[in-house]
Amino acid sequence: MFKKVTIVGLGLIGSSMARGIKEQGLAETLVAADRDQDVCDKVTELSIADEVTSNLEEGVKESDLIILAVPVGAIEDVGKAIGPFLKPNSIVTDTGSVKQSVVDSLQPFLPDSVHLVPAHPIAGTEFSGPEAGFSELFHGRWAILTPLPETSIKAVEKITALWEALGSTIEIMGPKHHDLVLGITSHLPHLIAYTIVGTATDLEDDVKSEVLKFSASGFRDFTRIAASDPTMWRDVFLHNRVAVLDVLQRFTEDLTALQKAIRRGDGDYLYKVFDETRDMRKQIIEMGQAEYAAAPGMADASPAGTPPVVAPHKGSASSG
Amino acid sequence: MFKKVTIVGLGLIGSSMARGIKEQGLAETLVAADRDQDVCDKVTELSIADEVTSNLEEGVKESDLIILAVPVGAIEDVGKAIGPFLKPNSIVTDTGSVKQSVVDSLQPFLPDSVHLVPAHPIAGTEFSGPEAGFSELFHGRWAILTPLPETSIKAVEKITALWEALGSTIEIMGPKHHDLVLGITSHLPHLIAYTIVGTATDLEDDVKSEVLKFSASGFRDFTRIAASDPTMWRDVFLHNRVAVLDVLQRFTEDLTALQKAIRRGDGDYLYKVFDETRDMRKQIIEMGQAEYAAAPGMADASPAGTPPVVAPHKGSASSG
Repeated sequence: MFKKVTIVGLGLIGSSMARGIKEQGLAETLVAADRDQDVCDKVTELSIADEVTSNLEEGVKESDLIILAVPVGAIEDVGKAIGPFLKPNSIVTDTGSVKQSVVDSLQPFLPDSVHLVPAHPIAGTEFSGPEAGFSELFHGRWAILTPLPETSIKAVEKITALWEALGSTIEIMGPKHHDLVLGITSHLPHLIAYTIVGTATDLEDDVKSEVLKFSASGFRDFTRIAASDPTMWRDVFLHNRVAVLDVLQRFTEDLTALQKAIRRGDGDYLYKVFDETRDMRKQIIEMGQAEYAAAPGMADASPAGTPPVVAPHKGSASSG
Repeated sequence: MFKKVTIVGLGLIGSSMARGIKEQGLAETLVAADRDQDVCDKVTELSIADEVTSNLEEGVKESDLIILAVPVGAIEDVGKAIGPFLKPNSIVTDTGSVKQSVVDSLQPFLPDSVHLVPAHPIAGTEFSGPEAGFSELFHGRWAILTPLPETSIKAVEKITALWEALGSTIEIMGPKHHDLVLGITSHLPHLIAYTIVGTATDLEDDVKSEVLKFSASGFRDFTRIAASDPTMWRDVFLHNRVAVLDVLQRFTEDLTALQKAIRRGDGDYLYKVFDETRDMRKQIIEMGQAEYAAAPGMADASPAGTPPVVAPHKGSASSG
């Protein structure tokens, strides 16, 4: 599919792409470039790339495809560094969780002859680093592409083919719209999870130890989300500030209304809200994004982001 | 173990207990009592009790053990109705998610010769009704007992034996302390999940459909929790008002601090909070309440609430 591919940044996403690209034979030569020498050593040890370098400028030379799998906050620096070394007609793509700021901070440093196709794979775990990656990470997941109106269709087709080969389903939308949708589905839930786990962290020691002990009653689900990579998430919130603050405002208003209902003992309001939210779950199940309990104890299903792959697993308790 | 046992309220919890008691042969006669005739018909159809009645007063007569598995808000009414019909020296227990209010609203209606042992199994799914129950629901879970200082030790031992026979591990604590701990581990997470799903429900239709489509990026975990029984949860919030409003206040303060950091672009503060919360997850994993990724794609583990049972399953995405 490509002659030479360079992945810049070998964390969970970058190293998973490296494994998938090798397994599927999508590149004649695969270069792993990471400024962190420890990461380079680990990648060499794992044998998931043909060449490994801590020199980004060297790494991208003669590459047909450059994949930037670095935190959103590092995109501008990396773009500035590699811009002058990019081959004419090469394609640059990324994997960042925010898209408008990636376009804004990368575009100015790319030569006119280079094609930028921003991308965002909706996949991940709460683990980080090159050893956390695995080639199946993108199977049955969405990959969202946010090309600009002037982007060459051929370049978009190539990135589409890349993600399809890695097992993903493609969706195309504008970068600003992406940032709003993900602000609700991903950024706000992560912010809330970080907050609630942070609140528990501040508790007196004896209560805290019991919170850990009885975490299966709801709290545990939040700790998994709140264990995600802090650098990546700091950058997400700094770079999707407007959309996040907007949805956070709506959330706070709704929470205040529930708080008031609890204080006043307004059971009718509480019931109404709790009843309406059930419908969202039903719709997600109907779309095949989650599964109704198939057997005793299977309260939830599938980590899959798209309809084709649905593998049930045991869910956590939703007890009181 | 018991001659005659009556379960009042045959929802998810009551019907699961019925199945477990039958399977383990813990009662010579098991009576299912529910005021809802539809539920009684369903229970008869499922054959999970020896006798089925919609008359609670009839149902509890001559019983040695009466289990109240009704929403917390219905406890007082039920206690008032059955109180005069209870056999001397019988034991009354419950399964409510709030304990102080259960003690307060039940105790006045019980004859002095009857032993009250309040209990709370930390188990559940987001599904409701007699057909949603299964006998393994309590396997490897905690059951918290909150007996009063004057409660007979023999009665506490019998309820301990009951829950152990159903597969649970016992913890004993005071009712007020229970309400604070569960306020953090369970009630606050559910309130937050209901809120965030409610916020998404109010979105414009085109954005909402995309929220459903890309729900795997974090939002989906919240929809499962927010699909829980609305009546049960309305009652939890009305009956654990003080503890819930207290932890909600702390949560709101912490969220406001993060909001301010996002607005000001204070990356150091965001990183600090996001880094500290990782530690909670580590401690839960070390306690055996969740498992570290054992294989590719296994980002999370086990629905178990207690150490003995740990069965890995595929976790959801924690992507940006």
